[in-house]
Amino acid sequence: MRVNGVPWRPIRLAAGGGGVEVIDQRRLPHEFVVVPLATLADAATAIADMWVRGAPLIGATAAAGVALHMDRDPSDAGLGEALATLAATRPTAVNLAWALADMRTRLAPLVPAARAPAAWARAAAVCEEDVAINRAIGEHGVALVAAVAARKAGPVNILTHCNAGWLATVDWGTATAPVYLAHERGIPLHVWVDETRPRNQGAHLTAWELAAAGIPHRLVADNAGGHLMQRGLVDMVIVGTDRTTATGDVCNKIGTYLKALAARDCGVPFYVALPSPSIDWTITDGLGEIPIEERPGREVTHVGGRAADGRLTEVRICPEATEAANPAFDVTPARLVTRLVTERGVCPASAAGLARLFPERAGVP
Amino acid sequence: MRVNGVPWRPIRLAAGGGGVEVIDQRRLPHEFVVVPLATLADAATAIADMWVRGAPLIGATAAAGVALHMDRDPSDAGLGEALATLAATRPTAVNLAWALADMRTRLAPLVPAARAPAAWARAAAVCEEDVAINRAIGEHGVALVAAVAARKAGPVNILTHCNAGWLATVDWGTATAPVYLAHERGIPLHVWVDETRPRNQGAHLTAWELAAAGIPHRLVADNAGGHLMQRGLVDMVIVGTDRTTATGDVCNKIGTYLKALAARDCGVPFYVALPSPSIDWTITDGLGEIPIEERPGREVTHVGGRAADGRLTEVRICPEATEAANPAFDVTPARLVTRLVTERGVCPASAAGLARLFPERAGVP
Repeated sequence: MRVNGVPWRPIRLAAGGGGVEVIDQRRLPHEFVVVPLATLADAATAIADMWVRGAPLIGATAAAGVALHMDRDPSDAGLGEALATLAATRPTAVNLAWALADMRTRLAPLVPAARAPAAWARAAAVCEEDVAINRAIGEHGVALVAAVAARKAGPVNILTHCNAGWLATVDWGTATAPVYLAHERGIPLHVWVDETRPRNQGAHLTAWELAAAGIPHRLVADNAGGHLMQRGLVDMVIVGTDRTTATGDVCNKIGTYLKALAARDCGVPFYVALPSPSIDWTITDGLGEIPIEERPGREVTHVGGRAADGRLTEVRICPEATEAANPAFDVTPARLVTRLVTERGVCPASAAGLARLFPERAGVP
Repeated sequence: MRVNGVPWRPIRLAAGGGGVEVIDQRRLPHEFVVVPLATLADAATAIADMWVRGAPLIGATAAAGVALHMDRDPSDAGLGEALATLAATRPTAVNLAWALADMRTRLAPLVPAARAPAAWARAAAVCEEDVAINRAIGEHGVALVAAVAARKAGPVNILTHCNAGWLATVDWGTATAPVYLAHERGIPLHVWVDETRPRNQGAHLTAWELAAAGIPHRLVADNAGGHLMQRGLVDMVIVGTDRTTATGDVCNKIGTYLKALAARDCGVPFYVALPSPSIDWTITDGLGEIPIEERPGREVTHVGGRAADGRLTEVRICPEATEAANPAFDVTPARLVTRLVTERGVCPASAAGLARLFPERAGVP
């Protein structure tokens, strides 16, 4: 997508390999800063400290991190170190495990001298595949938006949680791909942006994306979505997912479950946009089988932003004596999901629904 | 309750009338500042700008505001001005309307010279009645906490939203009264404190109250409650209410509805603690009949707290171009409320339940 009219992506690989640069998303929306990743350690830090975040972008950055290390140490030990280091950065996003397994499968059989070019080529392909997937999600999802537009006057009101935008992917985003395509095609839209405490990815990133694209939007506290749905002010909810079970349970940013409950209670369709690499075909019980990342309490007790003097500043919002708990994700059971929107089409959130679209992965003949 | 060992209340009237002081709750938890209210305008500002907040405390402050003005202008015009000015400060809390109607009923028949002493006496009585009500709510509610404690090992995990604590009342709080009594009686407790965006009353006030009382608690993002309930980490939810219909619908701080949905979905009891002055006996449909206050967007786009340099600082968390919507309350339908906890006992959230406890108000013989 464009930033001040210039096409940009949250990760860019130098043509022919050897160089990686990412947008430091911790500094958005206040500063737009691009930083180079030169080493495996840089890539691991970028993921763990959330310079980059979002399941697809984490996968792409992990692939690039392996490539960076193959430039330095393409031995079996070097490959093992790269895979282990990157695997330890974030526990939830299945794309991370998927990208690393993919790199292992492709690189392990090669002689060390062949690994770096192969790794760079594959990292670039991971990026391009993600762009194509998200574009396809957008095409399938925009039909859902158009259907609402066809039966009501005024803008289609879409609520989204966290950032499943182009900043969370290599381009287009997952939940936002239908939004961007609908906007391109002249469908009037208005997006309710959940601020998404504690890290405020909605306020920081989704609002920034939508402002940059000129799409009408308003920021709301995470608490507001139920009220908006009760009052008929939300036509559809679209969110992303970090991991989806083979049965359609969705593990996404903390608070997603609450919005899904409200959508069901108010009769609002609740869509989850997902690239198939975020499906974990090995599990069927989201609540029982997906470990939930517990992040530092400081993300809750402190809030960062731009102070009146222009400086990026962090403020403590609670007493010194108060500690915080910070589960980063929750599980939305498939029963609360109206439809999954994948690169192959829209399906019920169920084993049968997913198997129909992905028979080769679900083991269906 | 005590602050550093000293008994304190969020509003104090000088004995014999003429003086009012309140805790400036905008500065908690970072600074404990008591400010005098000298005029009707001071009282109106204290309510509108949320130096004081919480339905019962708003009612008490409004009564004191009328008394302040009767010292200056006890004419019919002066009484009318006081009532009109205070009525315009906050739209949701029924206690405000209740307190003003009560003052009008008592003062209007009096000759002007008799109004000031009567107003001060009544304002003091409103405060003492609130304390007695909250203490009674605590006695009824503590039985619910004790029942959980009797059937499980370890602390009773209670989740609360916003601040329905002693800072929201004249003493004890509504939702917190059972918590304080349970703690006094040695029942082991742990409280999950929703931060309660956008104004962070949980982080600022409830956490401060619990820390001051030495009650174990952890702050969580508003998004986390559903996850905690899914995992069995919440034994009960207790919240307050700004207005309750005669049928048991509850209008409370924005986000309450989402927690009630999660509680129902997870089988967690959802209790609402309320003093009877917060019941609006004239309405039966919370969604249809309660106007929802829309507060300034700046409360969402900016967050205040203490910066590393020790100064109270406000930071902007979203792009300059992004605007916010800020509905301050939502309605939790009675069907999601396990029980109401009133000063007369615990009852189903229904017209019949309330009528059994308050037959004289519900028009039941």
